[in-house]
Amino acid sequence: MASIFSKIICGEIPSYKIAEDDRYFAFLDINPIAKGHTLVIPKQETDYIFDLEDAELAGLHIFAKRVAQAVEKTVPCKRIAVLVSGLEVPHAHVHLIPLNREAEINVTAPKLKLPHEEMQEIAEKIRSNFE
Amino acid sequence: MASIFSKIICGEIPSYKIAEDDRYFAFLDINPIAKGHTLVIPKQETDYIFDLEDAELAGLHIFAKRVAQAVEKTVPCKRIAVLVSGLEVPHAHVHLIPLNREAEINVTAPKLKLPHEEMQEIAEKIRSNFE
Repeated sequence: MASIFSKIICGEIPSYKIAEDDRYFAFLDINPIAKGHTLVIPKQETDYIFDLEDAELAGLHIFAKRVAQAVEKTVPCKRIAVLVSGLEVPHAHVHLIPLNREAEINVTAPKLKLPHEEMQEIAEKIRSNFE
Repeated sequence: MASIFSKIICGEIPSYKIAEDDRYFAFLDINPIAKGHTLVIPKQETDYIFDLEDAELAGLHIFAKRVAQAVEKTVPCKRIAVLVSGLEVPHAHVHLIPLNREAEINVTAPKLKLPHEEMQEIAEKIRSNFE
């Protein structure tokens, strides 16, 4: 069965899309830790990130860097943190999280709930900053 | 001034070393979130991970994958999580954290304090599993 992320890639499930190329796809996390929190995934459905071939893994992080630079231009923050936890959706995904304080990285903290319009606006701005 | 990590690379500050090649270095985090928590760094001193050139960034994650596979063989866990927060030491570093539950990723949680002998033993085992 296709993962929820594969359904997002093919458009069966809507998403706040940021960018894609032939191998990778980026979209806003709908339960963000911070505004601009973005997920970057390989289109090829692989559960565990370290099961990716070296070239796929390298390409994923290079694509994520470009996305992170776009997020950083859009959302005021000190850094974009990178997190791969791997125990939720069985499709490898890199979290890019705008960070102002170290302590903000806490996956058990309550997530933000942003209105649809704001999510759309954030996605559009990040998209326009993506190079 | 050399970062604390550059001092670790050159041996000026001791570490529980796991592996190195000409470009990258891995060693145990002395304030681990979990047993086997390892840091992977580029030898070239760059503060922010997304300031690394694409090839450097790609090489870092491919090296980290090999380290993660060695950690996974050593420490019982479901996954190795990847975290780059970037607000502590100004020398880019990838945290590899053995994970059994999602909630374990919390940088504000109290860190483990393991005796020197145990850290040495863990490092030795991971080293012996590194390919």
